[in-house]
Amino acid sequence: MHSYSRETFVRRWERLQQKLQSKGIGGFLATQNVDIYYLTGSMQTGFVFVPADGEPLYFVRRSVVRAKEESAAEVIPLGSLRTLASQLVDRYPGVFAASSILVATEFDVLPVQQYLRLQSAMPNVSWVDGSLLIREIRMIKSAEEIAWIREAARVIDVALQEALSSLREGMEEVELMAVIEQTIRRHGHLGLMRMRGYNQELLTGMVGAGAAAAMPTYFDGPAGGQGLSAAAPQSSGRRAIRRNEPILIDIGCCIEGYVIDQTRTAVLGDLEEELARAYELSEEVLRLTEKSLRPGSVCESLYLDALRFVEAAGLSGHFMGFGADQVKFLGHGIGLEIDELPVLAKGFTYELEPGMVVAVEPKFTFPGRGVVGIENSYFITEQGFETLTRSREGLIRLP
Amino acid sequence: MHSYSRETFVRRWERLQQKLQSKGIGGFLATQNVDIYYLTGSMQTGFVFVPADGEPLYFVRRSVVRAKEESAAEVIPLGSLRTLASQLVDRYPGVFAASSILVATEFDVLPVQQYLRLQSAMPNVSWVDGSLLIREIRMIKSAEEIAWIREAARVIDVALQEALSSLREGMEEVELMAVIEQTIRRHGHLGLMRMRGYNQELLTGMVGAGAAAAMPTYFDGPAGGQGLSAAAPQSSGRRAIRRNEPILIDIGCCIEGYVIDQTRTAVLGDLEEELARAYELSEEVLRLTEKSLRPGSVCESLYLDALRFVEAAGLSGHFMGFGADQVKFLGHGIGLEIDELPVLAKGFTYELEPGMVVAVEPKFTFPGRGVVGIENSYFITEQGFETLTRSREGLIRLP
Repeated sequence: MHSYSRETFVRRWERLQQKLQSKGIGGFLATQNVDIYYLTGSMQTGFVFVPADGEPLYFVRRSVVRAKEESAAEVIPLGSLRTLASQLVDRYPGVFAASSILVATEFDVLPVQQYLRLQSAMPNVSWVDGSLLIREIRMIKSAEEIAWIREAARVIDVALQEALSSLREGMEEVELMAVIEQTIRRHGHLGLMRMRGYNQELLTGMVGAGAAAAMPTYFDGPAGGQGLSAAAPQSSGRRAIRRNEPILIDIGCCIEGYVIDQTRTAVLGDLEEELARAYELSEEVLRLTEKSLRPGSVCESLYLDALRFVEAAGLSGHFMGFGADQVKFLGHGIGLEIDELPVLAKGFTYELEPGMVVAVEPKFTFPGRGVVGIENSYFITEQGFETLTRSREGLIRLP
Repeated sequence: MHSYSRETFVRRWERLQQKLQSKGIGGFLATQNVDIYYLTGSMQTGFVFVPADGEPLYFVRRSVVRAKEESAAEVIPLGSLRTLASQLVDRYPGVFAASSILVATEFDVLPVQQYLRLQSAMPNVSWVDGSLLIREIRMIKSAEEIAWIREAARVIDVALQEALSSLREGMEEVELMAVIEQTIRRHGHLGLMRMRGYNQELLTGMVGAGAAAAMPTYFDGPAGGQGLSAAAPQSSGRRAIRRNEPILIDIGCCIEGYVIDQTRTAVLGDLEEELARAYELSEEVLRLTEKSLRPGSVCESLYLDALRFVEAAGLSGHFMGFGADQVKFLGHGIGLEIDELPVLAKGFTYELEPGMVVAVEPKFTFPGRGVVGIENSYFITEQGFETLTRSREGLIRLP
């Protein structure tokens, strides 16, 4: 069902193994569905073990049949966790027969309950946090991965056009969102978008109009949205879209597992001058950032440069949220999840490398009035960057 | 935005406190978004602490403004985890000033990374697994919660009718699914359905036709589905719906946080005799189960009774999946999440109680041919049960 060659997975294993060897770790046990898919091409229930040296194995509880059809790694039917422990000793005697070994796993997503069971089933293992190891491997995309993100960018542009031709004064935000959702679904959207952070959830983005878009929320992004309920307090709600207010269309879709993230700002009529100026500033921030989108640029400097630019323009209080609810980043990696590395934020000293994909999203929030901004996704190349986002730029003024 | 009285939350706190007291635990720290919502009416980022005795507090990182509007518990702005530790000592000196105390939290969902940070910020706390405590409290629904599930049942029936009137030979499964998704979204579906289990994900259910529905998958349910990709290997795919094959329509929606889960089986034309007979058997299992849907019945006995009944009919090999991919349950609780307690399965010795809501889903899988079955959701009352599902029963034969 997917188009990856076995070579793609071999390269992923080797890159992970180099990291394991350099840190003196015996192996990596992947427990999370997305990491398992990344390492095998299959997302069945189980574990993938990648030894620091040698062949990985995919221990599968369910469905073994399906895993065998899909996986690039050898599939071993899995009984209990106790069985896993003895299977690991059998298959990797050099690693697991030692009296004490280091194994990395995903501390950022693995629940405590499963962790305690692993500890008890493998008392000779010392577990270390391998979250960054796998996230750093996943940060560099292959040509096949870029192809899927490119396709997602194509689909979301189709959905934006569909939305703009349906947009009418008085329409509820969520009605416009439903048009977008139906369009992306018919074009291959898998029906979910994944986010790795604990408690973070992603709808397919948001259509947010006027004051509703500017409502602060728990969501780890510059614009939250009113939402339909306190039980999912983000994204679109029942607010009717009015004339002369900004309509933030921050949307994504997921094609073959890969997400795109883009934002455009529309208005029925025209924006008040301060908001129109802020929108222009968001495009200027994008142009400024593009100048640094090349291998060797340091991620945090992109954020800090943008911040200085916006400060000079007098709008830093509105940048990436307002007041206590501002977020402290300019962009983020995308791929199988929407909160991938690298993050364009203070403290992230990664240098940009060919194969990274980042969504850059300068936005300005005006409480009670709305959010304006733009978001493009970029692929970092040897020479600089390629813009993956296909939708035309500019404030979208509709009659 | 929600219609709960403060009294609703006070009752929830008291029920949790009774459990804490009976187990000698000093308090419960809720970290998961759904549990936080259940305990406060708000889903912002932070922690809720419920002491064994006294008032709970909601420590909020973001958005404090929104939490204050929504929460039934007092809101305290939260800095770092270190701050949380000293705030807890300040506000609950009787609990946190002790040299050693027991605090429960959700080991079933809390990631190891956050757990280790909590451990290090509060070295005098011994953490115990409180997953069952909170899940058992949530298992008994209030009248307001039942009202939302009832509304979700109404919306999903509207969507089913819409789907049936759009159903045509040659249509792709996912096209029919898109009709359902658009309908529920327009009627208040929040745009996501929550599932608590690690790595489990939920789309809005599945439309599965013929052989595609019978494909085994990791999904913890009797029918998996082919899906659109190995990157989300469940639910509807691009298979065209044909005449005279079963079309399993297993769908849900989420209204104000509460989910419904229902299944109906349709066919364009007619089913081959063995499948038609299996469908009838699924309704017979439902009738048999309904006889035991009353306070005092033991959950596992409902599953075992169904199993015996199906064995006698000679179809146990097809019941709830096929072969190695059978699941070992008959039904499950629903509420804010779709995998709530109680589970109708071996080992679950809970007695049914008024306020429980269970989805009962007898299904039969025929590899290469399809899945037939039915699923109703029931509210357990003092007298017995109320059927929440509104869609008419019976095999739906369309011309």
